[in-house]
Amino acid sequence: MKLSEICKILEIDCDLKQDKEITGINTLQDANENEISFLENPKYAKFLKNTKAGAILIRKEDAVDLPVGTIALITDEPYLKLAILTKYFAKEPWEDGGYQVAKNVKIDPSVRIAKGVKIGKNVTIMPHVSIGPDVEIEEGSVIYPNVTIYRDTKIGKNVKIHAGSVIGSDGFGYAHTKTGEHIKIYHLGRVVIEDEVEIGANTTVDRAVFGETRIKKGSKIDNLVQIGHNCEIGENTILVSQVGLSGSSKLGRNVVMGGQAATAGHLEIAPFTTIAARGGVTKTIKEPGIYSGFPLMPHKQWLKLQGLLQRLLKKS
Amino acid sequence: MKLSEICKILEIDCDLKQDKEITGINTLQDANENEISFLENPKYAKFLKNTKAGAILIRKEDAVDLPVGTIALITDEPYLKLAILTKYFAKEPWEDGGYQVAKNVKIDPSVRIAKGVKIGKNVTIMPHVSIGPDVEIEEGSVIYPNVTIYRDTKIGKNVKIHAGSVIGSDGFGYAHTKTGEHIKIYHLGRVVIEDEVEIGANTTVDRAVFGETRIKKGSKIDNLVQIGHNCEIGENTILVSQVGLSGSSKLGRNVVMGGQAATAGHLEIAPFTTIAARGGVTKTIKEPGIYSGFPLMPHKQWLKLQGLLQRLLKKS
Amino acid sequence: MKLSEICKILEIDCDLKQDKEITGINTLQDANENEISFLENPKYAKFLKNTKAGAILIRKEDAVDLPVGTIALITDEPYLKLAILTKYFAKEPWEDGGYQVAKNVKIDPSVRIAKGVKIGKNVTIMPHVSIGPDVEIEEGSVIYPNVTIYRDTKIGKNVKIHAGSVIGSDGFGYAHTKTGEHIKIYHLGRVVIEDEVEIGANTTVDRAVFGETRIKKGSKIDNLVQIGHNCEIGENTILVSQVGLSGSSKLGRNVVMGGQAATAGHLEIAPFTTIAARGGVTKTIKEPGIYSGFPLMPHKQWLKLQGLLQRLLKKS
Repeated sequence: MKLSEICKILEIDCDLKQDKEITGINTLQDANENEISFLENPKYAKFLKNTKAGAILIRKEDAVDLPVGTIALITDEPYLKLAILTKYFAKEPWEDGGYQVAKNVKIDPSVRIAKGVKIGKNVTIMPHVSIGPDVEIEEGSVIYPNVTIYRDTKIGKNVKIHAGSVIGSDGFGYAHTKTGEHIKIYHLGRVVIEDEVEIGANTTVDRAVFGETRIKKGSKIDNLVQIGHNCEIGENTILVSQVGLSGSSKLGRNVVMGGQAATAGHLEIAPFTTIAARGGVTKTIKEPGIYSGFPLMPHKQWLKLQGLLQRLLKKS
Repeated sequence: MKLSEICKILEIDCDLKQDKEITGINTLQDANENEISFLENPKYAKFLKNTKAGAILIRKEDAVDLPVGTIALITDEPYLKLAILTKYFAKEPWEDGGYQVAKNVKIDPSVRIAKGVKIGKNVTIMPHVSIGPDVEIEEGSVIYPNVTIYRDTKIGKNVKIHAGSVIGSDGFGYAHTKTGEHIKIYHLGRVVIEDEVEIGANTTVDRAVFGETRIKKGSKIDNLVQIGHNCEIGENTILVSQVGLSGSSKLGRNVVMGGQAATAGHLEIAPFTTIAARGGVTKTIKEPGIYSGFPLMPHKQWLKLQGLLQRLLKKS
Repeated sequence: MKLSEICKILEIDCDLKQDKEITGINTLQDANENEISFLENPKYAKFLKNTKAGAILIRKEDAVDLPVGTIALITDEPYLKLAILTKYFAKEPWEDGGYQVAKNVKIDPSVRIAKGVKIGKNVTIMPHVSIGPDVEIEEGSVIYPNVTIYRDTKIGKNVKIHAGSVIGSDGFGYAHTKTGEHIKIYHLGRVVIEDEVEIGANTTVDRAVFGETRIKKGSKIDNLVQIGHNCEIGENTILVSQVGLSGSSKLGRNVVMGGQAATAGHLEIAPFTTIAARGGVTKTIKEPGIYSGFPLMPHKQWLKLQGLLQRLLKKS
């Protein structure tokens, strides 16, 4: 898509000396010269001076110190314009066409496989599974009935995904208009599930806005867990049933989260940390340990607090 | 069904001067002269005098001031009798037969479509979707794989429903016998989803007992959300993952509920209210604002409470 | 499988006087002379002296007072060895082959039914349901679209299972290596759902490790509920939406758990107990009553605590 065309769609006045082919949308850090990026939140302004983005949706007052190759697309609402633009780069969620299947697989005749899918050897796929375009499933993996795998998802070796789970659905992201409507951000990234991961039943893993949602090797995820867009789950991490991870949560290796625990988004949890059942993580955890409660605190402190409350109650 | 037949089924002694055709069951407020209604909870007694119901299941002591046209069916257990009766008015959950599809749709060959369904133009329906009798889906809507839409559901324009979600399942309603059994209330109402709504993956929306569960225009609902029977979700409302709404929750427009927040049933939330993640709403909220905690309180007060608890903990 | 072969697989040095056919794995209490068992947690050591197990994975120091017929398989990591062994006794999750269907059933043509299934009369099975090997469904039961029933599940009479639910998926159980990897425990047990049970949409019920997960007669379970492996749900129990039961929770009859309530595992709840919404049960409840909060306390005490906190807040 030509940059001039994008300016037209977004109703941005951009006086281009030379037009440019734009092939995608990306963050300031990851965009290349044929990608468009955006700056809405000032905390990302630090990435401006080194961005390689071909063009950037940006407010007039922020458009200083841009690299030479980066064209400023001036707008009062960069994020809203971005949202509108994502629709034009979204691929079809389903396309029929040729796909590749290795030897010695068991694929139920009811399974629907879209264009460009690659399925490795010794894979088992049970009834009523739907596999979207360009998905890859490596050898030895087992997909139980009624699972949906959205397009572009990559699944490693010996992965198990239990019935009813949904991998790669759009993340929950919208830009908001001044009149209170929500403009969908089409999610252009994907989900990557590494080797030996097991995912329970009716769990949901959202695709990334750009880039990847990644579940690393050997992690085990229970039933009815929600994993938001752009999360990164470290190796051998354990998420018990009904855990909810908001977008861009980054869990280190061997983290354990008990049932119904949750994270607010855009934070990190140190490797080998345990979050007790129902724990609500709202800030980055740098020190491994056992944490409980909401707001979250060290587990020992939480026990102490509960004892204190019981004593107050008795006295009253 | 004849009223005399109903009396027989319910083992109610009713001395009818004239028999009557009964076509359905409804609330005191909404029943017409060919519908039967009930009064169990005294707080609804105020609707008795203006009801247009053709007959009413009611305790002897409550059967005063009934409108002339309303026949009293006297019973000690109106709600239990109602539950028993619902079964006789429930339609088949699945029937095959003719349906209508507009031009330019993409419907996967594995999709199962029941009798009387109407699908508008430019609709996309992906693999393994099940669409029950008399469902309507208007133009431009996209239904992802493995979604189930129960009978009579109405879906507006440009709606997106992600994989694995269930729309229109029976609400969770039972009448209880004296010996502790639960008699199912068959849900005779439906779900209406208005234009531009997006629903995430593996979310559930229950149909109404009578009348409608309604999700209004432009609302966005994340993954693994539960919406109980007879809820009404205002325009442009946002429900984040794992939110749970009990039956008959009425949310105004542009309400936002954070992850894992919930409501007890039969309450209202004022437009433009925000419930923080995990907030538990147990009473009607009349004043818009930001609320947190369980029990729910203004967010500022919740922050103050957490500070207070931390100080107590340090002192102890 | 010969015991000598098992020793080889597990790399255990066992000097057998006489080899033995091993047909399964089971607990110390339930194992028979052709089954292998294990002792990891000292609290189960009391079951050693009466076990009928043919062989037992056990630490050297614990292998005292074994019954004459029970062969000790000495290892430092009994649970890990057990986990490795479960894989060899797991059956295929899906096999095609002959099955039996009674008269007067409605089974949608898209339904996939595996080998050995038995379906009783007047059963309705809606589109895209998957029914694994050796499942039994008794008369009058109704299975809504997109449900998955894993192998060996037994479903009684007049059961209703709403769309998208998953019955019999593997429980969440792993043995952990010294280097932090998780070795899957293949779940060899099954799920039994008794007569008149209703299960909502997108709910998950895990199969037992050994033995059964059982939902007793007349229980009603809402949407998005998680029931862990080896749970036992008493008659006429009610679980409201988003409840989570950890493994081996044993609920008496007529228990009620409100929305988002949960249990830690390996505990009992007395019959006729009510757990309010969000209640978190971490210990066995012997006295019936109404309980709230997390940590859990009698509901009256919880109300008092909330009042106390509000007063403290006003004073501060």
